[in-house]
Amino acid sequence: MNEYILTYRQVHYWVKGEIGKFIVKKPMVLGHESSGIISKVGSEVTSVKVGDRVALEPGVPCRRCNRCKEGKYNLCKEMAFAATPPFDGTLAKYYTLPEDFCYKLPDHMSLEEGALVEPLGVAVHIVKQAQVKPGDTVVVFGAGPVGLLCGAVAKSFGASKIVAVDIQQGRLDFAKNYAATGIFMPSKAPAEENAQRLVQENDLGDGADIIIDASGAEPSIQAGILALRDGGTYVQGGMGKNEITFPIMAMCIKELNVRGSFRYGSGDYKLAVELIASGKINVKELITGKVSFKEAEKAFEDVKAGKGIKILIEGVKE
Amino acid sequence: MNEYILTYRQVHYWVKGEIGKFIVKKPMVLGHESSGIISKVGSEVTSVKVGDRVALEPGVPCRRCNRCKEGKYNLCKEMAFAATPPFDGTLAKYYTLPEDFCYKLPDHMSLEEGALVEPLGVAVHIVKQAQVKPGDTVVVFGAGPVGLLCGAVAKSFGASKIVAVDIQQGRLDFAKNYAATGIFMPSKAPAEENAQRLVQENDLGDGADIIIDASGAEPSIQAGILALRDGGTYVQGGMGKNEITFPIMAMCIKELNVRGSFRYGSGDYKLAVELIASGKINVKELITGKVSFKEAEKAFEDVKAGKGIKILIEGVKE
Amino acid sequence: MNEYILTYRQVHYWVKGEIGKFIVKKPMVLGHESSGIISKVGSEVTSVKVGDRVALEPGVPCRRCNRCKEGKYNLCKEMAFAATPPFDGTLAKYYTLPEDFCYKLPDHMSLEEGALVEPLGVAVHIVKQAQVKPGDTVVVFGAGPVGLLCGAVAKSFGASKIVAVDIQQGRLDFAKNYAATGIFMPSKAPAEENAQRLVQENDLGDGADIIIDASGAEPSIQAGILALRDGGTYVQGGMGKNEITFPIMAMCIKELNVRGSFRYGSGDYKLAVELIASGKINVKELITGKVSFKEAEKAFEDVKAGKGIKILIEGVKE
Amino acid sequence: MNEYILTYRQVHYWVKGEIGKFIVKKPMVLGHESSGIISKVGSEVTSVKVGDRVALEPGVPCRRCNRCKEGKYNLCKEMAFAATPPFDGTLAKYYTLPEDFCYKLPDHMSLEEGALVEPLGVAVHIVKQAQVKPGDTVVVFGAGPVGLLCGAVAKSFGASKIVAVDIQQGRLDFAKNYAATGIFMPSKAPAEENAQRLVQENDLGDGADIIIDASGAEPSIQAGILALRDGGTYVQGGMGKNEITFPIMAMCIKELNVRGSFRYGSGDYKLAVELIASGKINVKELITGKVSFKEAEKAFEDVKAGKGIKILIEGVKE
Repeated sequence: MNEYILTYRQVHYWVKGEIGKFIVKKPMVLGHESSGIISKVGSEVTSVKVGDRVALEPGVPCRRCNRCKEGKYNLCKEMAFAATPPFDGTLAKYYTLPEDFCYKLPDHMSLEEGALVEPLGVAVHIVKQAQVKPGDTVVVFGAGPVGLLCGAVAKSFGASKIVAVDIQQGRLDFAKNYAATGIFMPSKAPAEENAQRLVQENDLGDGADIIIDASGAEPSIQAGILALRDGGTYVQGGMGKNEITFPIMAMCIKELNVRGSFRYGSGDYKLAVELIASGKINVKELITGKVSFKEAEKAFEDVKAGKGIKILIEGVKE
Repeated sequence: MNEYILTYRQVHYWVKGEIGKFIVKKPMVLGHESSGIISKVGSEVTSVKVGDRVALEPGVPCRRCNRCKEGKYNLCKEMAFAATPPFDGTLAKYYTLPEDFCYKLPDHMSLEEGALVEPLGVAVHIVKQAQVKPGDTVVVFGAGPVGLLCGAVAKSFGASKIVAVDIQQGRLDFAKNYAATGIFMPSKAPAEENAQRLVQENDLGDGADIIIDASGAEPSIQAGILALRDGGTYVQGGMGKNEITFPIMAMCIKELNVRGSFRYGSGDYKLAVELIASGKINVKELITGKVSFKEAEKAFEDVKAGKGIKILIEGVKE
Repeated sequence: MNEYILTYRQVHYWVKGEIGKFIVKKPMVLGHESSGIISKVGSEVTSVKVGDRVALEPGVPCRRCNRCKEGKYNLCKEMAFAATPPFDGTLAKYYTLPEDFCYKLPDHMSLEEGALVEPLGVAVHIVKQAQVKPGDTVVVFGAGPVGLLCGAVAKSFGASKIVAVDIQQGRLDFAKNYAATGIFMPSKAPAEENAQRLVQENDLGDGADIIIDASGAEPSIQAGILALRDGGTYVQGGMGKNEITFPIMAMCIKELNVRGSFRYGSGDYKLAVELIASGKINVKELITGKVSFKEAEKAFEDVKAGKGIKILIEGVKE
Repeated sequence: MNEYILTYRQVHYWVKGEIGKFIVKKPMVLGHESSGIISKVGSEVTSVKVGDRVALEPGVPCRRCNRCKEGKYNLCKEMAFAATPPFDGTLAKYYTLPEDFCYKLPDHMSLEEGALVEPLGVAVHIVKQAQVKPGDTVVVFGAGPVGLLCGAVAKSFGASKIVAVDIQQGRLDFAKNYAATGIFMPSKAPAEENAQRLVQENDLGDGADIIIDASGAEPSIQAGILALRDGGTYVQGGMGKNEITFPIMAMCIKELNVRGSFRYGSGDYKLAVELIASGKINVKELITGKVSFKEAEKAFEDVKAGKGIKILIEGVKE
């Protein structure tokens, strides 16, 4: 593979050796946000050829279970996912993948951009789960990479307002220059109070149509539910504590749709490539650092320290 | 009105004088589960005539707001709902309602059955929110009137399994004879344990397709979320504590659909009448007592004491 | 395979040697409505074992194209379908199939019933395309095997009225005893006139909610479109002339949903097995004749002559 | 009213005195594409006030029928629609309308633009019926006002390709400069041939995801159906002959969704105003002529003669 993006998730494995029930028991290659150049193809492959530049969708489902056959392969229990034990990741010279999980990049799209198709695919899936429609008002909690990309995808889906919420001013400034039409910094006040102020300051009427949480933080989740209008939709995109205190009666009485989002599935990668290729979403702005493959460990250190947004590890050119 | 059904909600007003933000400030007529005979019609009314026996849909929306115009009038903020302050209820000799909220009963359907269209409408709405499809496996937490009716509606929607969950054996016995294909009594064990046992004992594979909570109880909600398969749907039908401890990450990773349900809306009453009229759902079995209008207060005492399922108050025949 | 059902489609190949663009160029085994007993399994097979009695879903998709991955594998261009050139059919002693296309029959369900899962799967797919909801009024044009089964499936989906339409009184009589709540015989009058009479005689208000055409006949299609209410849904299930005269402006102004239906897809076979196993649909009534494998040719003759509904060819017991 | 746009439909009434079953029996004021300034409000009106500049949604439904209550008020049988007998139209000094059918224009949006909300609302409704999703390929037959606006709306919904089809080069040139990413002029060849060439020349793979017909012409409808991919969606937006020769088997086997579109409904006007106000759609380019109220008859003559796209009739300023 030629370009890799380092994610917090990778750093987590590097530091802790486990995420939830996934435990690293033997040396494991990291990496799942990658692009590369096809170096070899099987005899029946028709859609890509040697030399093609591609983005890699790093999880291959069983294609046979009920979830796969109903169009939700992201929920396949047999998924072989890069850098999720026991499967090695993509931070390697060569990586094997079925042709239909390789997405050809148009000539004007760089391998760097190709490596960012993965986090954009995550955001595409979240925004699809949120069923964002043209004219909707959308609030995104968390202005890290996924939150920023969710805002950009919501914009490309026709959202009329995109409010970025974060507790760091620097991130809000970045969001404002990126895709957000408004920003909001919550206080330490109760969730109800932050929700009210969020709605009022951003002129969201009876509440937002859509709330996306890309933070995983309990106060965000609570404020998000409370800031929705009746019949609105909430999507949990960010990972955090397993259990939180949740305003269930507000959910019930406002007849909300509360949905999870897990990885990416049918059509998500294809759309992510198109959004970059068409210029609708600029992912290059999110690359705040580059290191050579040899310096990769430094990149891990930087991400661990919370520096920058996305750091690119450059592959060794053949 | 000629027949009224007494609900716990009515008893709550009678005892406490308030439910949430709705506070009874002056004498208020109770009652919202009712049927009756048309005694007078306006000059432009065409769909009902004097003498018609009808079920009464007791909440009339503004018909003008966004929610009303998009087909979700149950979420109308301007709803005038019977026996919700400041609006009087239906426990009266006469009650005024627009013609399109009066549902004519077929000749073979009694006024008693007509009074039970209301709770059945609640159940229809919940099951629609749950998007129950033929062949689905459905678990209903809570075997009170609404839970029992949710099971019956799920059956009429083609569910292949309906498991009733309750902590009272008597209610489970009733459910088993009513619409449930299986029953389950949770222990005081952690939610995860009850969820696993529920799935195993009822042969629900990777988990239930649909969970409906008609209990409002925190342990039920937790076990419900944990007992769902990936991509399953949960509906909160029962009222309880405003906030609970909620397994948000299970919701996220399993990509669940979690939805509220509030009152009843477009088409719900019409379908409820049809389900009774066609014999698909027997509501008479739920009437465990009858009192005359004069004895109504006794009925309030009985419901307060938790006796029976539904008590009918008979109207004064003219 | 042990039990086969003979379809008109098979007879068509037998007589003509082609259907549309599919041309039989060398000897081809016929048969695609079959059940059988597992005689051998691959080393990684886990869901079925030798001796299991199964229904066979006879079309296996590529599992890799966009349609497969979005949950519509019935539209896969690479589908290998039994008895569709160049693929042999199931009228043979042994037939090879991936395990996930074998559906285990419960003990109380016979192989005969198993052979009828195929046409029921077709009907399930049509009724799903029609999005039949509880309480809907449904009209089915054509009371042959697929039309009859569409009526039965619509009933199991909760339709409140199912009107069977045919030009043969015998078929209407059969339908009336099977799943239809009403019947209608069109005259040679213009489509508009038949549509009006159909609606009036069956008390369908402003028109039917759902029309299913299982006839493929031009006058049926025209009358079907004209008999729908505003916003209703029409599904073309039957095959007929490539082009017909179609009331396009009625479709436009009434804002109809007009949909095709092709084979069966995700979940259809599973539901078909459940509908038979639960007793909701009786398919045995449709078997109007049985022949031994050696007499199979006679069955082809009978179907060609229009005798009976479904003829079963009994396999050779090992 | 202060600004009116003249449509072919109005000219049709002017010339013929009837459209279909709507027959002008006494003098009738024309006009339904209008904006104006509020000159008087009822005592309970809260959302608009005297002096507000508004776009007028010219059809008011009954708010009580099944269609109204399920969120499809555009299908209301009791709709009172401007300039549809017996209702007068908006080409008048004053026009009375319920407040919820008046849409306030933001300060930076002109009354001229406000008058074009109506045709944009038509296009919004058509594109919603087509369920255009981000990344979809969309072909629009007919590059008149509605076809042009459908292309622009599809673009704002995130379509990746928008191909305009027309038989006049001038219209194609206009479309290319407006929202289309590609253009196509059909020949007099059979529909199958035009469909193939359309798909090939515009690189639409297995066919377009979405076809919108805004022409009403039989050859367009046929080519449109044939140019769709399996599982694609077709919407009939344009009016034409009541009956046409239609490739019904292609529709069946490709499992297409074919839908009508009638007027505009829930949320369409609101979104149309936002699309103009946000600058996503430029409607001013479509105004190819302006006349004073006194010269209105000349505008009718020009539209009758097929000159220009939209002609604006300026109201008398008070």
